[in-house]
Amino acid sequence: MQGVIDELQKIVGRENLLTRKEDMVTYSYDAAVLDSVVPSAAVMPETSEELGEIVKVCSRQRVPLTVRGSGTNLSGGTIPSSTSGVVLLTGKLNKILEINEADMYAVVQPGVVTATLAAAVEKKGLFYPPDPGSQAVSTIGGNVAENAGGLRGLKYGVTKDYVMGISFFDAMGEHVKSGSRTVKCATGYNLAGMMVGSEGTLGVMDEIILKLIPLPKARKSMVAVYKTIEKASETVAAIIANRIVPATLEILDNFTIRAVEAYSRAGLPVDAGALLLIEVDGHPGQVEDEGRDVEELCRKLGADSIKVASDDTEREKIWSARRSALSALAKLKPTLVLEDATVPRSQIPAMVRALQEIAVKYKIEIGTFGHAGDGNLHPTILTDKRNKEEWHRVESAIEEIFDKALALGGTLSGEHGTGLAKAPFLEKETGISSILFSRRLRKAMDPYGILNPGKVTGVI
Amino acid sequence: MQGVIDELQKIVGRENLLTRKEDMVTYSYDAAVLDSVVPSAAVMPETSEELGEIVKVCSRQRVPLTVRGSGTNLSGGTIPSSTSGVVLLTGKLNKILEINEADMYAVVQPGVVTATLAAAVEKKGLFYPPDPGSQAVSTIGGNVAENAGGLRGLKYGVTKDYVMGISFFDAMGEHVKSGSRTVKCATGYNLAGMMVGSEGTLGVMDEIILKLIPLPKARKSMVAVYKTIEKASETVAAIIANRIVPATLEILDNFTIRAVEAYSRAGLPVDAGALLLIEVDGHPGQVEDEGRDVEELCRKLGADSIKVASDDTEREKIWSARRSALSALAKLKPTLVLEDATVPRSQIPAMVRALQEIAVKYKIEIGTFGHAGDGNLHPTILTDKRNKEEWHRVESAIEEIFDKALALGGTLSGEHGTGLAKAPFLEKETGISSILFSRRLRKAMDPYGILNPGKVTGVI
Repeated sequence: MQGVIDELQKIVGRENLLTRKEDMVTYSYDAAVLDSVVPSAAVMPETSEELGEIVKVCSRQRVPLTVRGSGTNLSGGTIPSSTSGVVLLTGKLNKILEINEADMYAVVQPGVVTATLAAAVEKKGLFYPPDPGSQAVSTIGGNVAENAGGLRGLKYGVTKDYVMGISFFDAMGEHVKSGSRTVKCATGYNLAGMMVGSEGTLGVMDEIILKLIPLPKARKSMVAVYKTIEKASETVAAIIANRIVPATLEILDNFTIRAVEAYSRAGLPVDAGALLLIEVDGHPGQVEDEGRDVEELCRKLGADSIKVASDDTEREKIWSARRSALSALAKLKPTLVLEDATVPRSQIPAMVRALQEIAVKYKIEIGTFGHAGDGNLHPTILTDKRNKEEWHRVESAIEEIFDKALALGGTLSGEHGTGLAKAPFLEKETGISSILFSRRLRKAMDPYGILNPGKVTGVI
Repeated sequence: MQGVIDELQKIVGRENLLTRKEDMVTYSYDAAVLDSVVPSAAVMPETSEELGEIVKVCSRQRVPLTVRGSGTNLSGGTIPSSTSGVVLLTGKLNKILEINEADMYAVVQPGVVTATLAAAVEKKGLFYPPDPGSQAVSTIGGNVAENAGGLRGLKYGVTKDYVMGISFFDAMGEHVKSGSRTVKCATGYNLAGMMVGSEGTLGVMDEIILKLIPLPKARKSMVAVYKTIEKASETVAAIIANRIVPATLEILDNFTIRAVEAYSRAGLPVDAGALLLIEVDGHPGQVEDEGRDVEELCRKLGADSIKVASDDTEREKIWSARRSALSALAKLKPTLVLEDATVPRSQIPAMVRALQEIAVKYKIEIGTFGHAGDGNLHPTILTDKRNKEEWHRVESAIEEIFDKALALGGTLSGEHGTGLAKAPFLEKETGISSILFSRRLRKAMDPYGILNPGKVTGVI
């Protein structure tokens, strides 16, 4: 291993190679509830050329390589595969290389922070919609690798829908380009599409071309208060059925409301059975119409009250309360498991009922919040992993959540990715042929098995 | 070969297996200007099961298999690779399996005609936006295989942007599933994304899940008349720069205007240097504002006149004139070469100038029309392939068009695919590493090389 470390140091310099035990611990885990694995070194390239050289060394020396942005992912996608592995940190590949206003695209390095890009394009009147919960720290590279979603998925789609092109180093360190700076591109295989969600197992990205759109001219946020989560979830289905696609349509159950209020003192109604947080955006006329229609639907389906944000401060208050949900819940118990099994949106009421039944059946606490409008709930289990008996019940509950989502026509993961966490369950959804196909694909693209081993397809 | 034919006949029955010479000629070519290759049999499965069995026979017997929808593609993607090859016709796999209004998706078999699906979902107030020029006959399977675009690309994207999931048989006949009925899915590799644009070389699709959106509430179409194509193309760039994204923004040069008028008697101004055909859609207030702003921009940038369609009949007249452009030009000479090299939209004026220079330089006729708003022009060369000397000049002109598009930051193909036509030029755009990567991918997924050999990556 020392030989590899010496080679890597030659590429990036002493200051960009970390091997101290305390640093290695930092890169041994991510936001998933999984065992940590301490790598042997972490390397921080500053240029594409260095990135390519690092991949070549790892390829030649057969060293497992795990690329890490900010480590916010919830599937274990950035947990090193072995103690002999190297972690590649994208923190210094953080340049926005181009924001093209005329052609509405941006070219970025993988280490650019999501919110930094969003703010930079907004200054030019443009919009990069994907907004994963971790956007303040998550990186575009990580978002692409995990196909990250966010609050705006129902109207604006997910990361996948904004990737126009990717260039990357393959497992042998060869530089591959796919996609284009044009909104239409049918040249060659859609390798950029294949890279999205591949969690660092098919190549190491160095540049990403992202589609931008004009910033919506107007928006309106509101909070609808319900006695029961059933009524709230029926409203979600009714809004979509009425052909209204809000920019965001979030739900918080009573458990989550109380946790958020205790954490953030945002003035949420702690007695409410559930809240819907809704934002419509677009042309001012459309915002007015859709805002009115949504209000009417909420009332018709049993909302006790609806509060419309009267200015940006009030709007910000709503969304920062929503964004604090995960941190607020995390305060309550030593271990928090955040799931993202997703169902077709009309099945949200059925999924909400199922989650309540599962909580009772396994005697566990589940806080439910999330992106109800696109069917992507976040059932959040609060537990203590050290309590083996309870943890066993939690594991059974998670598997039952997966089974229920699939039975309702859904998917194991809406936006957190497969990683290590969901790899063992993949077969339930796709069948064995899809896994064998995926493993064959992976083996061909990474014959020495150095790119983030164990993720997505399991160990091959 | 007779053994293979007997096996196939056992699967689909005598009535669904064609081997007569005159039938085989029908399936020997497509809409690309390339040499035809007569296959040995054509087979028409009626079910997914039959489809899978056919792939298994071809795999076991190592028979090249080319899947064909309506054969409207312009890249040679459906020309058989050899006279011992089998063509698989999707015409009887033409069922819309589900249109889910509540969750806004459709599940279709590959042989469903694009316009049939569009009309079926429109009846339910939903919208499937991709509208390739051949939509009246093209199939969804073909659209997915070629990543077909259309007139609405700039606002609504292309086929790729509507594919939520695909199930397919791999080269060994194993059934693989990818994607989901949910708008968010981060489970496993994005195999559905990889299949888009893969031209039948990675698997044979049997079901496609497509995203639908609400039908726009209003729309307004207009025709702006210009003295010169330069002024028209500058208007295109100005509209986008003003953050207006019309649903369609099409250009026709004088040559195309005259051809269309002679063909369709639509009342187009034959003396105009160019026309812009523009449609804005969305909320009625947005349509009013954008319609007004577009009109103002057209005038400011030199339009002689602007005519707004006053009703659906006038609107239909505009778009049927545009849709007849290809047929109209095809009448003029024995051979028509329709290119689709695409540039970032701000480069449309530069590309238009380049096309004029190339026409002069090679003494050929180029009619230019197409999707100016997304940078996807269709320079259309009128020639006679039997005139060897002229054909040689045409080939040189095509290569220069490719070079120019790439120099302007564009791509070889915006929407027609790579097929046989552009495979030899792929390296210009992507470099050799991308091609080697793609060939490795393909070889792994199709070890016997039976799936549409020669397409996309060239012969491997």
